[in-house]
Amino acid sequence: MEKRKAVLIILDGVGDRANPQLNYKTPLQYARTPNLDNIARKSVVGLMDSIAPGIRAGSDTSHLNILGYDPYRVYTGRGPFEAAGLDMDLEPGDIAFRCNFATVDDDMVVIDRRAGRIKEGTDELLKDIDRMVIEDVKIFVKPGVEHRAALVLRGPGLSPEVSDVDPHDTGLKIHDAKPLSAEAEKTARILNEFVKRAHEILKEHPVNKKREKEGKKPANIILPRGAGMVPHLKSFTEKNGLKAACVVGTPLIRGICKLAGITPIEVPGATGGYDTDMVAKMDAVLENLRDYDFILVNIKATDIAGHDMQPLKKVEVIERIDEAIGHLSENIPDNVVLILTADHSTPCTVGDHSGDPVPIMIYASDTRREGEAFNEISVLRGSLRILASDLIDIVKNHTNRAEKFGA
Amino acid sequence: MEKRKAVLIILDGVGDRANPQLNYKTPLQYARTPNLDNIARKSVVGLMDSIAPGIRAGSDTSHLNILGYDPYRVYTGRGPFEAAGLDMDLEPGDIAFRCNFATVDDDMVVIDRRAGRIKEGTDELLKDIDRMVIEDVKIFVKPGVEHRAALVLRGPGLSPEVSDVDPHDTGLKIHDAKPLSAEAEKTARILNEFVKRAHEILKEHPVNKKREKEGKKPANIILPRGAGMVPHLKSFTEKNGLKAACVVGTPLIRGICKLAGITPIEVPGATGGYDTDMVAKMDAVLENLRDYDFILVNIKATDIAGHDMQPLKKVEVIERIDEAIGHLSENIPDNVVLILTADHSTPCTVGDHSGDPVPIMIYASDTRREGEAFNEISVLRGSLRILASDLIDIVKNHTNRAEKFGA
Repeated sequence: MEKRKAVLIILDGVGDRANPQLNYKTPLQYARTPNLDNIARKSVVGLMDSIAPGIRAGSDTSHLNILGYDPYRVYTGRGPFEAAGLDMDLEPGDIAFRCNFATVDDDMVVIDRRAGRIKEGTDELLKDIDRMVIEDVKIFVKPGVEHRAALVLRGPGLSPEVSDVDPHDTGLKIHDAKPLSAEAEKTARILNEFVKRAHEILKEHPVNKKREKEGKKPANIILPRGAGMVPHLKSFTEKNGLKAACVVGTPLIRGICKLAGITPIEVPGATGGYDTDMVAKMDAVLENLRDYDFILVNIKATDIAGHDMQPLKKVEVIERIDEAIGHLSENIPDNVVLILTADHSTPCTVGDHSGDPVPIMIYASDTRREGEAFNEISVLRGSLRILASDLIDIVKNHTNRAEKFGA
Repeated sequence: MEKRKAVLIILDGVGDRANPQLNYKTPLQYARTPNLDNIARKSVVGLMDSIAPGIRAGSDTSHLNILGYDPYRVYTGRGPFEAAGLDMDLEPGDIAFRCNFATVDDDMVVIDRRAGRIKEGTDELLKDIDRMVIEDVKIFVKPGVEHRAALVLRGPGLSPEVSDVDPHDTGLKIHDAKPLSAEAEKTARILNEFVKRAHEILKEHPVNKKREKEGKKPANIILPRGAGMVPHLKSFTEKNGLKAACVVGTPLIRGICKLAGITPIEVPGATGGYDTDMVAKMDAVLENLRDYDFILVNIKATDIAGHDMQPLKKVEVIERIDEAIGHLSENIPDNVVLILTADHSTPCTVGDHSGDPVPIMIYASDTRREGEAFNEISVLRGSLRILASDLIDIVKNHTNRAEKFGA
């Protein structure tokens, strides 16, 4: 029995609803997708619930579930995955936060939540703050793209159950982090002390003095939000016997992969935006199939079009994806199982994630030929009506890697 | 409401995948099956997962699940079901093994795992070994077909968590059974002592002396494997109020039925092989419907063709099954519910069991008429997308025997 490899392509938020601008078709139904449809005709097809029927999943919780990690057990907040996405060294039990550099006035009222969309100097700003120690807790910070950063607290007796310091709007005073349970009092105290001390350092920092001279807003505060405890995730490779890599643009999904021991492959031109180079991503998959058994690909642009409530833009993105998939399927070896699905629906009529199930198709050289086209309606003729938590077992079946239970 | 009877026909491993030799159809799609298709047109149809999506089931675990016994609770290994299939008297808690008679040299290296495919004399060989007592453990052995046998250990403090003595290949020294948990040390010790003592007796046995004189390999050792603890299965008849019998050729499935209190009906010509007399099996069903409410039939030949990776052979077997089913449905009383399905898929492209779901159809005189043909693709139009653990409840529904929950 030949062991196969697998490529799992997540079209982020591609699932949608009937759209009045598309004659009440979904973007997938409306788009011209000859390559996707051709694969569907040789695939098992159907629908998948990212978490459970009707549940609105985040990209983080759905990717965790798809990869076989129960989000209800391992997910306490977005912070750990953002921090891991920035390649911070994390230990299970660490409390991590997403942060923004922001601008506050003397009364600690937020004037700009993105510190004038600061682009440069954040690494210098954080140098004087990183590795601060408060009580018995070590604190680590790392800059992300533009105004973004991540914060990690490491020490005994910490909890992720603290409210955000970020007031989530301008004109408001920054919030005190509040403990949401008795066990979180220490964490809230240390977090508030950290924000205060960081502000004292940042407001006098040469980088900010220079910005003020140039008429730019100073990045004089760090606003943490999205607290979560770093979970222990058993390595995906060890769990499933599939040496795994990923081609993903967004730090959040990259962080999930890193915590699951899935190696990120860097692809120049893969931006996580509308302008991402999809063909470059497919080429990265083709090149790395020599070294890996399982490659996860995330294409984010479909989700962005959903959030932007732009059905025609979503159609256009889907048609570009179809071309990239055509390039992939022309060049992919015959012993690779190809799985196409989404992490959740992001309907253009909603402008956010919804709990509608997502289409899925699984192609291998010998899969039953169930499909006709790849969209939410056509896949209903197929056999799959699964939960995302079943997916890896099904992938192991089609890669001929599942262990037999019994004789 | 008339209470009906039910006949459940398991086409072992009939589920398959798209096969290049069959123009990418499955054997069920490719075969000419007018009788099966005729039943499908009057049935509820669909797909069933033997255990759960993607999980590769054994014939043992899947039959247990189909009959309503959770294999994750009752199945620890194949031994107990093989032993029960040989009509050994078993008690819950007994540890049972499958065994081979084999030939070892003076260094305990296996020369032949089947002792020259010994056909006669195994009962005499075992007479001197059966009912051996080691410490406080009683040991029972019984011959099976040809070189096969089963072994049972009965006593306090035993565990099924021991490794195989059978090295599973020739040219290797026999293995010491190893305890796989601390509780299994006694079991491993007794098993190793048994194998040693049995070897001492067997190598001097007159049957073997005679074989050696005739130039045949002596059956001078017994190699146990597949340890399992005999579970307590509540009688199928009691659980479901259906007096149950079975028509099955293979000892493993026969053993499951025996442990579940399902009476085996012996059918001359039902071999469990390609040459099995399928019409004779159907006649046995028809005769016994007077005395039983539920009859399980297993036809093994489809599975064998899958293991042999012979799609055209599988098609031929399916067409013979179709004839036998035609004979059955011509003669079956109208108050019988007929269920056709498989225990698992055995794709000819794989040569072993897979986790692909299996087609199922349920016919009664008044079932909704959903089907068109009986194969993995056509049944997708139907209502069934079930787990095997749901099946008996559905059978009880169609036999008008389900208890109402509520008012």
